[in-house]
Amino acid sequence: MRLSLARYLPVLDWGRRYDRAAFANDLIAAVIVTIMLIPQSLAYALLAGLPPEAGIYASIAPILLYAVFGTSRALAVGPVAVVSLLTASAVGQVAEQGTAGYAVAALTLAGMSGAFLVLLGVFRLGFLANFLSHPVIAGFITASGILIATSQLKHILGIQAHGHTLIEMVGSLVAHLDQINPITLVLGVAATGFLFWVRRGLKPLLRRMGAGPLLADVATKAGPVAAVVATTLAVWGFGLADRGVAIVGSVPQALPPLTLPGVAPDLIRQLAIPAILISIIGFVESISVAQTLAAKKRQRIDPDQELIGLGAANLGAAFTGGYPVTGGFARSVVNFDAGAETPAAGAFTAIGLAIAAVSLTPLVYFLPNATLAATIVVAVLSLVDFSILRRTWDYSRSDFAAVAATIVLTLTLGVEIGVASGVLLSVALHLFKTSKPHVAEVGLVPGSHHFRNINRHDVATDRHVLTLRIDESLYFVNARFLEDLVQDRVTDGCVIRHVVLMCSAVNEIDFSALESLEAINQRLTDMGIGLHLSEVKGPVMDRLRTTHFLDEMNGRVFLSQYDAWQALARPEMDRANAAE
Amino acid sequence: MRLSLARYLPVLDWGRRYDRAAFANDLIAAVIVTIMLIPQSLAYALLAGLPPEAGIYASIAPILLYAVFGTSRALAVGPVAVVSLLTASAVGQVAEQGTAGYAVAALTLAGMSGAFLVLLGVFRLGFLANFLSHPVIAGFITASGILIATSQLKHILGIQAHGHTLIEMVGSLVAHLDQINPITLVLGVAATGFLFWVRRGLKPLLRRMGAGPLLADVATKAGPVAAVVATTLAVWGFGLADRGVAIVGSVPQALPPLTLPGVAPDLIRQLAIPAILISIIGFVESISVAQTLAAKKRQRIDPDQELIGLGAANLGAAFTGGYPVTGGFARSVVNFDAGAETPAAGAFTAIGLAIAAVSLTPLVYFLPNATLAATIVVAVLSLVDFSILRRTWDYSRSDFAAVAATIVLTLTLGVEIGVASGVLLSVALHLFKTSKPHVAEVGLVPGSHHFRNINRHDVATDRHVLTLRIDESLYFVNARFLEDLVQDRVTDGCVIRHVVLMCSAVNEIDFSALESLEAINQRLTDMGIGLHLSEVKGPVMDRLRTTHFLDEMNGRVFLSQYDAWQALARPEMDRANAAE
Repeated sequence: MRLSLARYLPVLDWGRRYDRAAFANDLIAAVIVTIMLIPQSLAYALLAGLPPEAGIYASIAPILLYAVFGTSRALAVGPVAVVSLLTASAVGQVAEQGTAGYAVAALTLAGMSGAFLVLLGVFRLGFLANFLSHPVIAGFITASGILIATSQLKHILGIQAHGHTLIEMVGSLVAHLDQINPITLVLGVAATGFLFWVRRGLKPLLRRMGAGPLLADVATKAGPVAAVVATTLAVWGFGLADRGVAIVGSVPQALPPLTLPGVAPDLIRQLAIPAILISIIGFVESISVAQTLAAKKRQRIDPDQELIGLGAANLGAAFTGGYPVTGGFARSVVNFDAGAETPAAGAFTAIGLAIAAVSLTPLVYFLPNATLAATIVVAVLSLVDFSILRRTWDYSRSDFAAVAATIVLTLTLGVEIGVASGVLLSVALHLFKTSKPHVAEVGLVPGSHHFRNINRHDVATDRHVLTLRIDESLYFVNARFLEDLVQDRVTDGCVIRHVVLMCSAVNEIDFSALESLEAINQRLTDMGIGLHLSEVKGPVMDRLRTTHFLDEMNGRVFLSQYDAWQALARPEMDRANAAE
Repeated sequence: MRLSLARYLPVLDWGRRYDRAAFANDLIAAVIVTIMLIPQSLAYALLAGLPPEAGIYASIAPILLYAVFGTSRALAVGPVAVVSLLTASAVGQVAEQGTAGYAVAALTLAGMSGAFLVLLGVFRLGFLANFLSHPVIAGFITASGILIATSQLKHILGIQAHGHTLIEMVGSLVAHLDQINPITLVLGVAATGFLFWVRRGLKPLLRRMGAGPLLADVATKAGPVAAVVATTLAVWGFGLADRGVAIVGSVPQALPPLTLPGVAPDLIRQLAIPAILISIIGFVESISVAQTLAAKKRQRIDPDQELIGLGAANLGAAFTGGYPVTGGFARSVVNFDAGAETPAAGAFTAIGLAIAAVSLTPLVYFLPNATLAATIVVAVLSLVDFSILRRTWDYSRSDFAAVAATIVLTLTLGVEIGVASGVLLSVALHLFKTSKPHVAEVGLVPGSHHFRNINRHDVATDRHVLTLRIDESLYFVNARFLEDLVQDRVTDGCVIRHVVLMCSAVNEIDFSALESLEAINQRLTDMGIGLHLSEVKGPVMDRLRTTHFLDEMNGRVFLSQYDAWQALARPEMDRANAAE
């Protein structure tokens, strides 16, 4: 009982050993992360099309719940850029931004995503996330970065615009260019420029000026806060809000409210696919970060328990005025670097954000949306990395095709179609590759027991014996290929008396392949040719033994290819015949 | 030029060597096949919901065109049961049976199927047919047999009924039971019983009575003709057509007409999926038969050229009043057994059927539909074979799942959903199986250079060296599995200093798996553990060399696992430590 509870509640494990030193480290990390999260949370809420407080709320209960159920010590859960974009895209299809229905749909999406993640975790189905290949994820994140940055341009320009694909967005921006608010533009461009400079130039400058690495680091992290403070003061001091600069406005000064996600069947049906997509993309992002950080301290991540932790966090978001969340890369790395030792750091961050929610929200009244948009643009452009195109092109054209399709379709047709196409294309290309497996005719390396490709090595062969090494598992997609191949080879070589299939790299023979082997055996028997197998793996042989195939096969199964060679080949005779 | 023409026109190959002996053999085969095909063609047209002459027409031009373009010497092309059912199902969704639109839609379906097959052939995409696994085909054919037999019951009972799924059909039959025509019922049941007896009991009886095997065979094949003649005479002699027995009626006494398939975009769009499905199912059926027969004479089938041959046949059907056709099992076997040597036998069959079309059609005026239905029922019930369920269950539960789903969904939701679900399920199960590959920790078999699973064999190991043999190609679906596995194993064993991945059964490493290896290398480096590879295959190594991974890897690549063992392991030290 104790053990199984600890499996579902990792907090019982680290909580027992919690001490003063860990507490101090966690507290310092929490202060740093809290300062970083306040502007970030407001900005991601803006990206998701939600009121700013939703970003803060989405960072409180989810962090606490992840601290109880999650297995990563350093993962920081909350709103992230890509999931915010997906939320905007999904919720925008069922409700108008700014309406009560929009907020309820976001809660519903978080609730469905949470429930789905918990189900996956309980049924240990985390492997489903593997269908998102690395190239597809890389392409998707790059395209999402571009979409997110483009979506924020309207706030920097001070105009109204909308759209979910790059073409729609750019078209809408261009159509509304005449509405540009010059003051907003100045603020937005200044904030963006400042943040880029902080990210690229500040740290080296401070180091050159003799600042310690820690100070330089903290100053860099505080850049967004400085931009927020400066632009807020400017708007307040010069009364810019009256001159058309869009501001955050009044944010409720309160702890997260208790909210209820919607349960209308129509809403559930419309959000089902997006919820699954958000869950899986969020999980993949989160688990990558968690594993990278855990490895640095030789800790372990349990992927199925992670699903439960993230699921609980999303359920928490759904009932406390938030929206879908996941483990974020930036915040987790900051948390880790700042010295967080246990999930308690997350709990302290949640407390810090709760204090901010009840006391600091009046201070952001005059914060311009353009500043928040600038922090998003600067953050997401670091996600954009087209080098994946070149790297996959160099390595494998099929991986390249998957990346390119994902990027192009995400930008042109939207995030959901983009990522779905990437997954389907990856699967199709994999099946295509295994449908025509590499098969080598092999011969004996003289003076050894090794067999090698006759086209690459100088090996002994017997023209009466055709030995084929199959470099792929045999299953329905390539079963007929094998039939065709053997048929081709034996009708080519009229002197062939034996065919040996060397199965050292055959990890599976499914029922279709078994029937193909039966057909090959039947046809070879009709032609008076023997069919033999060699080096069949244990699990494959176990399964073949349950069938009649081994009885019906006209030849033998040899443990090693050398045994087969000794039993069947007569290379001397070849030479004698050749001399005829 | 000559060579490439011969590739697309196999007739140039066999035509040059055609002689008197081959001519005589082909002619005899053609006579036998023609007699068999007359009732069969009428019956399958009935099944497809088309006028009876469509079945005859679909057997003339297609046979001639296949003779020119196809590579099989004995394949007989024309209407077959499963394709007729698919045609009825597809065309029934766009037009009312008996209307001109219905016949045009059938022509369009044949035209689209023909074009699709030719395209597949020209682009050498025949491997796409492999996505239909053997269990899915077996399940689909069994379910189709049941659907077809059920669909014919209405003709045997003499009632009106319709529906495309088993439930709809049975429901409609039951609802119309009160309309049973007793005379039709007697004729239908008598014909069915007679045909079953011919199939099961006639041949042994004739042999016992001293008939030669050839005579017994021909008599059995002539069974349907006898039934046709007897029931036609009965209807004519007793005037049963006036007493409610449905008859074939007047069939145009003419050669196949020149027809044009429809080109309305709406029609094309609605028939696209069925056309693809019919093409692929027809191709799979045809190629299996062709290869089986070719193997018996050590001849060769070119699958891509077969696509062109079948495509030409379907285009021919589209322009001569037919409907989708393919190489049929029964007629091809009869053709082969009767001694057909070249596709000229098919051409002679076409001539025979053309003669029948212009001279014999008045004779079938009084042929009752019930007799045709009886020939269909008896023919298709031989397709029904539930043993595939037991055989797949014994061999592999995932193959069983694919069969069972295909049968159940074909019967309950229709042929298209059934076969599509079977294909998708097969792919999903394959991906699932490879997502958690077999990985064995191996050790050295004492006194040898072989390495075996430590759980199955008594082998030497070194607790500082973890050697894992991966029994699967590494690709995106299992890349993260490998990351998790290695992470788990090294955090378990704190004394591990080296991890060796033995890659003898790894046939591919895709980009996702490469990135996972990079992540593993990074994490192991952080832990101070070495990562090594052994027995990497040539093509896999070639590709890894195009990347920086081999430079970044903290350990080495060993040609053989034994090299790795000699370089890394110190089993003596283990014993010394154990003695401490």
